[in-house]
Amino acid sequence: MTPFIHPDFLLETPVARTLYHEYAENLPIIDYHCHLPPQQVAENTRFENLTQIWLYGDHYKWRAMRSNGVAERFCTGDASDREKFEAWAATVPYTLRNPLYHWTHLELNRPFGISDRLLSPETADSIWQECNAKLAEPAFSARGIMAQMNVVLVCTTDDPVDSLEFHRKIAQDNANGTFLPRVLPTFRPDKALAIDRPDVFLPWLRQLEAVTGIEIDGLDALLTALHQRYAFFHENGCRLSDHGLGMFPLVEYDRQGNPTAPFQVENVHKTLQKVIQNPEIVLDEVEINAFQWRILHELAKMNHAFGWTQQFHFGAMRNNNTRKFQQLGPDTGFDSIGDGDVALAMSRFLDSLEKEDCLTRTILYNLNPIYNHLVGTMLGNFQDGKMPGKIQFGSGWWFLDQKEGMETQMNVLSNLGLLRRFVGMLTDSRSFLSYTRHEYFRRILCNLLGNDVRKGLLPNDLSLLGSLVREVSYENAACYFQFPSLPRTESA
Amino acid sequence: MTPFIHPDFLLETPVARTLYHEYAENLPIIDYHCHLPPQQVAENTRFENLTQIWLYGDHYKWRAMRSNGVAERFCTGDASDREKFEAWAATVPYTLRNPLYHWTHLELNRPFGISDRLLSPETADSIWQECNAKLAEPAFSARGIMAQMNVVLVCTTDDPVDSLEFHRKIAQDNANGTFLPRVLPTFRPDKALAIDRPDVFLPWLRQLEAVTGIEIDGLDALLTALHQRYAFFHENGCRLSDHGLGMFPLVEYDRQGNPTAPFQVENVHKTLQKVIQNPEIVLDEVEINAFQWRILHELAKMNHAFGWTQQFHFGAMRNNNTRKFQQLGPDTGFDSIGDGDVALAMSRFLDSLEKEDCLTRTILYNLNPIYNHLVGTMLGNFQDGKMPGKIQFGSGWWFLDQKEGMETQMNVLSNLGLLRRFVGMLTDSRSFLSYTRHEYFRRILCNLLGNDVRKGLLPNDLSLLGSLVREVSYENAACYFQFPSLPRTESA
Amino acid sequence: MTPFIHPDFLLETPVARTLYHEYAENLPIIDYHCHLPPQQVAENTRFENLTQIWLYGDHYKWRAMRSNGVAERFCTGDASDREKFEAWAATVPYTLRNPLYHWTHLELNRPFGISDRLLSPETADSIWQECNAKLAEPAFSARGIMAQMNVVLVCTTDDPVDSLEFHRKIAQDNANGTFLPRVLPTFRPDKALAIDRPDVFLPWLRQLEAVTGIEIDGLDALLTALHQRYAFFHENGCRLSDHGLGMFPLVEYDRQGNPTAPFQVENVHKTLQKVIQNPEIVLDEVEINAFQWRILHELAKMNHAFGWTQQFHFGAMRNNNTRKFQQLGPDTGFDSIGDGDVALAMSRFLDSLEKEDCLTRTILYNLNPIYNHLVGTMLGNFQDGKMPGKIQFGSGWWFLDQKEGMETQMNVLSNLGLLRRFVGMLTDSRSFLSYTRHEYFRRILCNLLGNDVRKGLLPNDLSLLGSLVREVSYENAACYFQFPSLPRTESA
Repeated sequence: MTPFIHPDFLLETPVARTLYHEYAENLPIIDYHCHLPPQQVAENTRFENLTQIWLYGDHYKWRAMRSNGVAERFCTGDASDREKFEAWAATVPYTLRNPLYHWTHLELNRPFGISDRLLSPETADSIWQECNAKLAEPAFSARGIMAQMNVVLVCTTDDPVDSLEFHRKIAQDNANGTFLPRVLPTFRPDKALAIDRPDVFLPWLRQLEAVTGIEIDGLDALLTALHQRYAFFHENGCRLSDHGLGMFPLVEYDRQGNPTAPFQVENVHKTLQKVIQNPEIVLDEVEINAFQWRILHELAKMNHAFGWTQQFHFGAMRNNNTRKFQQLGPDTGFDSIGDGDVALAMSRFLDSLEKEDCLTRTILYNLNPIYNHLVGTMLGNFQDGKMPGKIQFGSGWWFLDQKEGMETQMNVLSNLGLLRRFVGMLTDSRSFLSYTRHEYFRRILCNLLGNDVRKGLLPNDLSLLGSLVREVSYENAACYFQFPSLPRTESA
Repeated sequence: MTPFIHPDFLLETPVARTLYHEYAENLPIIDYHCHLPPQQVAENTRFENLTQIWLYGDHYKWRAMRSNGVAERFCTGDASDREKFEAWAATVPYTLRNPLYHWTHLELNRPFGISDRLLSPETADSIWQECNAKLAEPAFSARGIMAQMNVVLVCTTDDPVDSLEFHRKIAQDNANGTFLPRVLPTFRPDKALAIDRPDVFLPWLRQLEAVTGIEIDGLDALLTALHQRYAFFHENGCRLSDHGLGMFPLVEYDRQGNPTAPFQVENVHKTLQKVIQNPEIVLDEVEINAFQWRILHELAKMNHAFGWTQQFHFGAMRNNNTRKFQQLGPDTGFDSIGDGDVALAMSRFLDSLEKEDCLTRTILYNLNPIYNHLVGTMLGNFQDGKMPGKIQFGSGWWFLDQKEGMETQMNVLSNLGLLRRFVGMLTDSRSFLSYTRHEYFRRILCNLLGNDVRKGLLPNDLSLLGSLVREVSYENAACYFQFPSLPRTESA
Repeated sequence: MTPFIHPDFLLETPVARTLYHEYAENLPIIDYHCHLPPQQVAENTRFENLTQIWLYGDHYKWRAMRSNGVAERFCTGDASDREKFEAWAATVPYTLRNPLYHWTHLELNRPFGISDRLLSPETADSIWQECNAKLAEPAFSARGIMAQMNVVLVCTTDDPVDSLEFHRKIAQDNANGTFLPRVLPTFRPDKALAIDRPDVFLPWLRQLEAVTGIEIDGLDALLTALHQRYAFFHENGCRLSDHGLGMFPLVEYDRQGNPTAPFQVENVHKTLQKVIQNPEIVLDEVEINAFQWRILHELAKMNHAFGWTQQFHFGAMRNNNTRKFQQLGPDTGFDSIGDGDVALAMSRFLDSLEKEDCLTRTILYNLNPIYNHLVGTMLGNFQDGKMPGKIQFGSGWWFLDQKEGMETQMNVLSNLGLLRRFVGMLTDSRSFLSYTRHEYFRRILCNLLGNDVRKGLLPNDLSLLGSLVREVSYENAACYFQFPSLPRTESA
């Protein structure tokens, strides 16, 4: 019987198969957005067993297990690694049609080489033994897996106060030739906007003071300190920022088109001072929104000044389950998709930068697919003709990171913009086993094009379509981000 | 020529055909949500003609007829049954691609056995004659049709003040073996929230006083009376509540996470007293929202206390046509899909129950498909690992109850949760002829899976997929609702 | 090799091919909504080169070019026509999967007869030469192209103050037999609602005074002047109005169901007077919304009084890029899709007309597909059974005017209403080359039906399906709009 994951997995047409195998398959991977711990790369972590590399920290799997009636101790609790793995193995047959079913078997196939079994209670033991044996080999260390998967560059996600010590360690190994893939930081200053949560904001401010040596007594000092960290990150190879937003703050204008008083620097400064001086103070919605708009606007100007790409992830509604949040903390699988109006706030935010001629390369990621068409048309408002694809519609994110979500994003982008200028896939992952998501994406892309050819929607011109495949799979990302000296590879 | 409705209708692949015929087709039907009149079951109603069983009360057909230029007298007016039927027969050829076209011919096929003709003015007479002759047979009485269609349990929709006399009559026949299918009530206390419509609310309150013997002079008395009715419904086999909402009321919290003053019991009590004492009073939005949140919260706690499943149907915008409402009343085909923000209110509502450890099994039904992904991810926030699929995404409802709507709901659920834990289909119908919607759903489910296998998206493992089909078609519902002593059947 | 555009383009099944070639292909075109300049028809404009007829004024292409990194001077600037064409030719291979790729090659095929080449830098010169040579022929004048494309009637889009001189000139040529297609005006009174932009509103008011001879000092005078223009447009063959809305204004009601004070005539009158007397005045949101609701309501009553069809286009967010707006003005490619709540405002607006028994034939066009289901069900609220398909869901508009957008609109309409009563396609175009969009639509429609037959979703009854194709492609539009004496054609 054909294995479930086989060389032509997802490739329904001859055109799709040719495009994938001849144009996409061997391209290296640029993973420009992920949440890998740089320490594990720096230290070349070895994993004792499949649970450690696969289930620790994976809230996608925890959610599926809870939905399947699995008790919390087998997700985040004190059950043994073996017990947790068995709970997951028992859940897998219930994830049919969920992306976890594909991801699971893609990851067992690569790097583990297992394609003759589906994970289930019946196969759990043999898979546990076989994978754990592999994990004991050097090729399955953190760095070993990256090398196996042909990864040339990854961007992690880092707080502005981070020392970047592990990135520097990795860069040394890059320099001395002992490790080839680049691991660059991404500047993620979300806490600078958290004025509505002084318990988060003020301790972070103190960390920022510590790493910069700047006393932050107001807006000027805050922006100076942030600018210093931009410079530090830039020196260490950072070329992207990332901004996680509930929603874009909405700026209000007067008749002359200037931001109204609350958004002016002096009032934002006063808001900041109030919180610094009195952590117990309760700000009103106007003050919070204005503070967040102003800070985000200033950060975006720094993104432009440093020539970085800025990413905006919006629309998550986090920590919906208060009891679980109190027990387990954030990022444990109790987040979901938010709603609310977006168009005006996003348009004005981008326009406020464009008006000052400081809108840098920008990627917009929405979590709720109801915003797909809105985002797909927003791009065109700010494409300035100075470079191809300057404003990008980000690949299907989080809950939308599945075949249907990726296809929908590519279809919307195709209909409303230029698919061929798309910078493509990223893993957004915390795990070294997620690189097959690039394979998954490339198969899906090639399959889309193959089906279009079959229906007569695209010309049957393999050279033309092959160019699109190479560009979206690798070359656009290699150019767009203007990374410092991306290493050349054989196949690129 | 192959009839339009044939044994492999909708089954595009060999896998789909095998799954349907070997796993789904002969399973009994649990119709856990419908609007059948229990009186007609109790009295085993006979129907004189096709119009009586098919067109009376069917606002779906009336809407289609009006859209086709058919005058009101042929929909709800004083035309004869024969004239109404002919008006409908003339409309059917204009419903191509509408679910009514499929439903119509599925229902002519089962139970009437007509599959050699499409309904149109040319075939109207022969179909009228043939169906009316069948309707004169015992097998086509209310109970006869339920038996023919292999129905084992239905849940009707009932007001808390209902005497349940017909349910009790049916239960006696269950007990004495003269009628096998169970007909259980569902508790639908929408009027308890209708504080903004005193003309509805106050008369209902008086009915509630009458059936409970409790004088309702404030919140305590109202909740006590409702609790008494919960107990009464529970005794009579009720295991579900249903709540029809425009939108979820939005609770506001203070910094300590407690509901603000308007949502507190004492203020809600005052609001209730004001309306009882002065039916002319005009409440403000804050009072209405807070009252509705509090009552819904208390009802949900009772749902938990009794171990019931609670259903929330939200997003309908009703009675849009004032003139028609004044002429014809509600539920006559002038309702449509509403919009507005949902995520925060729904999240807080469910969390407010989870915080008090009294969130019972819950099914969320949205009428606007823009909420699909929001709902699909909301589930995961409150799955507690104590049972599989505790929080459910309800099957395509009302305007979404068609092939595309059902497929979309199943695709979203698959991508964001566990399809295999889905409790599946319900008719939501007022007609004894609607049971083929379970057949329709099962065919669509098998077809989805068959197409996935064809594309390589699912393993070609009929035993695995067959389990999913049986579970979603029947077994999940049989377990999930914890009905009192569901009768065993041959095929289950 | 098969050309990309060939006789069976988009037709995937034998049924689709039969339906298209036997029922749709030769039907004449009624283009009931476009933005053609009537002057070019009146003067039978000749075009010097492909850039003039293809790229001048086409903001779709400009957006694609800017997204591809093409500088502004090649879009709207001072580059030569040849340079602009080459910039476009270089962009086309980057528009794969965008509707521009299909439109481009459909238009090269018809009327230019080029189907052996795809536009690219390699083929740019030969296509430039060949098309320019054709454009020098009489058959490629404005009127020549309309005749080639079998156009029998178009409706342009015109300001109420327009003299309609060119329409009258064309009507004379219709009368004397020198030109057959009818070119009728459409009444587009958007500026009558622009009370929030006195710089637009007041100059327009002065124009309205000039053409009517009425001094507009208040609401009565404004409505009288508008009524006079309705009569003038009606005399000149106008049978449609068109209303471009951000969103529908929302009327508020008191308990008796009457509009609250701000919406009353006397207060709207005062608002109007304030602006007339002081152009610098800043109105509040309540005044603006109430003014716009009242004027739109009164216009809709005039639409009814004259027996016209009214069109509402809503959901665009315009001129998002302030710098570009200041440089280039409106309609240059910096518009996108807006969001916000719609259901209640739309429902109340239509109901306010229905209550006064003056809701005329209405077509609703949404720009954001999130409103598809809302609109699809809104229709049914106001179908009165007096004519088929009185309230219509408009074909995919602007950003949704592509294969997927059209299919989605038809699928939603099919599921929620009666596809067979749909008035079908319009170009919405500024170009004489856009008539192949009717061909595109008809192919897509036939293909949808063919695929449905293949899947068993529709009966394989070519006569039944062919009727639907003819009706939606031509006959419904020919009946619905009640145009003055539409010329008969051979094939109609």
